[in-house]
Amino acid sequence: MKSFAQMDREELRALKTRLEKEFEQEKAKGLSLNMARGKPGASQLAISMPMLDMINSGSDMNTLLGNDTRNYGDWDGIGECRQLLADMMEVDKPNVIVCGNSSLNIMYDTVMRSMLMGVNGSTPWCKLDKVKFLCPVPGYDRHFRITELMGIEMIPVPLGEDGPDMDMVERYVHEDAAVKGIWCVPKYSNPTGITYSDEVVYRFAHLQPKADDFRIFWDNAYCIHHLFEGIEDKIPNILKECEKAGNPNMVYMFASTSKISFPGSGVSAIATSLENMAYIKKFMTTQIIGHDKINQLRHVRFFKNIDGLNAHMKKHAELLRPKFEAVLNILESELTGLGIGSWTRPRGGYFISFDAMPGCAKNIVAKCRELGVVLTEAGATYPYGKDPADSNIRIAPTFPTPEEMVQATRIFVLCVKLAAIEKLEER
Amino acid sequence: MKSFAQMDREELRALKTRLEKEFEQEKAKGLSLNMARGKPGASQLAISMPMLDMINSGSDMNTLLGNDTRNYGDWDGIGECRQLLADMMEVDKPNVIVCGNSSLNIMYDTVMRSMLMGVNGSTPWCKLDKVKFLCPVPGYDRHFRITELMGIEMIPVPLGEDGPDMDMVERYVHEDAAVKGIWCVPKYSNPTGITYSDEVVYRFAHLQPKADDFRIFWDNAYCIHHLFEGIEDKIPNILKECEKAGNPNMVYMFASTSKISFPGSGVSAIATSLENMAYIKKFMTTQIIGHDKINQLRHVRFFKNIDGLNAHMKKHAELLRPKFEAVLNILESELTGLGIGSWTRPRGGYFISFDAMPGCAKNIVAKCRELGVVLTEAGATYPYGKDPADSNIRIAPTFPTPEEMVQATRIFVLCVKLAAIEKLEER
Repeated sequence: MKSFAQMDREELRALKTRLEKEFEQEKAKGLSLNMARGKPGASQLAISMPMLDMINSGSDMNTLLGNDTRNYGDWDGIGECRQLLADMMEVDKPNVIVCGNSSLNIMYDTVMRSMLMGVNGSTPWCKLDKVKFLCPVPGYDRHFRITELMGIEMIPVPLGEDGPDMDMVERYVHEDAAVKGIWCVPKYSNPTGITYSDEVVYRFAHLQPKADDFRIFWDNAYCIHHLFEGIEDKIPNILKECEKAGNPNMVYMFASTSKISFPGSGVSAIATSLENMAYIKKFMTTQIIGHDKINQLRHVRFFKNIDGLNAHMKKHAELLRPKFEAVLNILESELTGLGIGSWTRPRGGYFISFDAMPGCAKNIVAKCRELGVVLTEAGATYPYGKDPADSNIRIAPTFPTPEEMVQATRIFVLCVKLAAIEKLEER
Repeated sequence: MKSFAQMDREELRALKTRLEKEFEQEKAKGLSLNMARGKPGASQLAISMPMLDMINSGSDMNTLLGNDTRNYGDWDGIGECRQLLADMMEVDKPNVIVCGNSSLNIMYDTVMRSMLMGVNGSTPWCKLDKVKFLCPVPGYDRHFRITELMGIEMIPVPLGEDGPDMDMVERYVHEDAAVKGIWCVPKYSNPTGITYSDEVVYRFAHLQPKADDFRIFWDNAYCIHHLFEGIEDKIPNILKECEKAGNPNMVYMFASTSKISFPGSGVSAIATSLENMAYIKKFMTTQIIGHDKINQLRHVRFFKNIDGLNAHMKKHAELLRPKFEAVLNILESELTGLGIGSWTRPRGGYFISFDAMPGCAKNIVAKCRELGVVLTEAGATYPYGKDPADSNIRIAPTFPTPEEMVQATRIFVLCVKLAAIEKLEER
């Protein structure tokens, strides 16, 4: 395969003419495919449907401790559901509060509370001149939107194969008291799919923050979302490592079943030190009387335990692998050697991260949209929606069918090529 | 019946001896009854159980518009559930956002957002020297805890038979720019059970706040919670009245099905002007991707429409009336004419409000607890938990059975009498 950079003007022009013709043909088809968001597909939702049979009018509605899930009580979640999510996050049950349907909501509340009320007695962040968060990039747009909304300055930190650039993280956290937090998706990261190395986790646990109220926001969004059997990523447990390192309060872990059972109708949890929990309790017991315990019961009766959860996730993997493979095979066969893009081959999670030639991402996304293929907005994976290189695109292969993913990826590849030629012609 | 005040020392002492003996007998029984919180009883929960059969693995999971409730989308609630709650609040569907399981949570978020970010572009309340809320008293302790937690100064406003003292409300709202809100439970108020008069509602709608960011927090906790057929309280709709009066943005209405379906597993909503909603949307779409739409669907499929809701509430009333009557009959037969207490006779809602002789409430609650009857803490119905007269006690008759309510009220009456004698002996 000749790389685009090696082609002369003539060759590029000929190729462009051919691709433009293809573009018009695709446009005429009037497709409508969505690869924008990390949404489970219909086949994944289907395997969770029996969960809806777990609770009916004849069910025993009591928890193992005999508490009625239909009434107020158990503000921190029913015991068996706390245990299930503790096992999922590999922490102890007393460190877990089970909340509503959304871990994003817990993260938002956590930042909001810190802004207005401080962290375990610290000065409220809103009273400070400047509050900063470190943002490994590319990262999750909804994390960045929370900190943007609250006026927190976001500092991009490059995310490598084994996690964020820890030299940079340490420099900022150790030297700048305005740095109050970092957004992390440690396992099968959104969007690159990488998993933090053991060393990265240890370095996180051993941070010596200049600010006492610095916290790691550790989003276990994909902690059991493996794609392949036998090559499941494992990482040290950050909560336990922080405790060992003498930093017991430095981390908040978050998780939910949004991409396990039903997005929007799952259960979510926060895990953290008992001291952090005591502070959170003061606010949470003012905010709510209790979360949805019937739904917690429904989840526990369906999954039973961590083995049940893992077995369920194997079924997800079966359904997801063909979709990821559809994308990866086409990218490989169509783009290898052309020098106009690189991409990740994740072992889990929900995304493939694509790096186009610098300056091409927005153009590619716009072209795809013209052909009826909706991608995540270019730039979304960076703070303030601004990718300085205009290069990264997040591909979400989970929602469409494998067949649709083939169609969508072919169109994507076409647009990548066209955008590259247009960029090269600018030279 | 001779009033206690008319009794001489001798008579009081003799009565006291008799009551103390009774007290010891009751104590020996080792009862355990809870009249502390407004929790539905088992019989009420039972009539909502068929709701849990509405959704199972064979169900059509789509909304009327064809959206899949199992996946992300419809951040403001599914259309049919927005309509149901709009009808319950007597507003239009476009003014309603259906949220999670807790209206308290929406109120908390609303105050929190105003504190940190302001109201529709106003200065964030946390940047102001002083923020005040008006608190009709006696009122709902969980409202007061929200404003207390946020450091908002709470100003008690007497609540009469027809609503808050509107002269006082107008004076504060018209003259003091630090007054940013008022907590209202307009129908079957917590705890007195009164309903605001039409005139009170009109005066609310015509307030001319000194502060542009003043808001009425209108908690429709008991809007369809009538106790008697044919004497259902009706009030003008505050959202529509505010609009007519040229104050379209002045009110947030809240409601939930916590005391209709299942506490903790219901659905909640906020209703307000489109301008307020646009501002809220910016925050809510950062906070969550979506609320639990499967549970929304479950509710709509069960209740169908406002007629279904009202029919359901008639069944609740059947179950609640005997409990209220058990309390009221005993209070009447045992305390009438004694001059040691007065109480409300609500036409709806969840509570009976009891005013003991000044200085007696804490003592009564402590005595009841000694006999195994748990009441809401004395003072809870006032800001900061401080009832200046130490007089008001909230009785929650919904959770125990009617038989248990008889037992509990007999004990309550005994403690009221004893506490009164102890107070009179101090003279």
